[in-house]
Amino acid sequence: MFTPRPIGFVNGPYANTSEIPSGLGAKHEAEGVLEILPELEPGLTDIEGFSHLIVLWEFDRAQGFELFGTPPTDDRPHGVFATRSPRRPNPIGLTIGELLRREGVKLHVRGADMLNGTPLLDIKPYLSSIPSEKLRRGWLAEAEARKGG
Amino acid sequence: MFTPRPIGFVNGPYANTSEIPSGLGAKHEAEGVLEILPELEPGLTDIEGFSHLIVLWEFDRAQGFELFGTPPTDDRPHGVFATRSPRRPNPIGLTIGELLRREGVKLHVRGADMLNGTPLLDIKPYLSSIPSEKLRRGWLAEAEARKGG
Repeated sequence: MFTPRPIGFVNGPYANTSEIPSGLGAKHEAEGVLEILPELEPGLTDIEGFSHLIVLWEFDRAQGFELFGTPPTDDRPHGVFATRSPRRPNPIGLTIGELLRREGVKLHVRGADMLNGTPLLDIKPYLSSIPSEKLRRGWLAEAEARKGG
Repeated sequence: MFTPRPIGFVNGPYANTSEIPSGLGAKHEAEGVLEILPELEPGLTDIEGFSHLIVLWEFDRAQGFELFGTPPTDDRPHGVFATRSPRRPNPIGLTIGELLRREGVKLHVRGADMLNGTPLLDIKPYLSSIPSEKLRRGWLAEAEARKGG
């Protein structure tokens, strides 16, 4: 397979995972900066036109993986591919960020829920959404219902 | 950084990229199967509860990358991070698939727009959408407007 390389790094407010909002109803409103390597700046051309970006990054501080995990949003374990756990076979994280503005190689985004210094793997434009009425959200919806009831 | 490894492979209808619908208004309705490695099957526990999955995979037949690309949806070049081009610094593809059913290690999905045999990197539950009225889609919306007008 390919050899991953950082395309840039996150400059954000979180130094430790304990500072990142988690659990049911957690809001990801933190502003952070995606700093792209200078030699890749031409690859950002026209990105300002998109309101939202899909950001892929490395869980660089996660160790190994486990096939079951208990997420902060529930008290029951689930398969790793049914969760957003950091301890995955390939430690790739995904964040949808709102692009607030671009300054050269710096992309200012809302929703930067990664640790400061996190290596970035890719940025893609967010093109379309599944309508919320078509979504089923399995154990997460059940956990929300239990908490609300 | 981490060393990627396949968590499984795509069993789908497309042998060549020329067969994959592309361009403005292309529909991705193809059904395919994500076949997960047997030793990772416990990681799929509870995935059936989600209607849609985020699938990350390797563009394993793309060679190198370019910072500008002209997508099939437009006749003008754009920065690679403002497109879904396969020729990216890290050749990671992303597909949102509708989970039709699971049979053991086989996930039957609608929207399998990858080539047959594509190595899978990760599967995550699709949890929420950005409302379409909040999305701006830059050059893609402009290209659609030019085509429609």
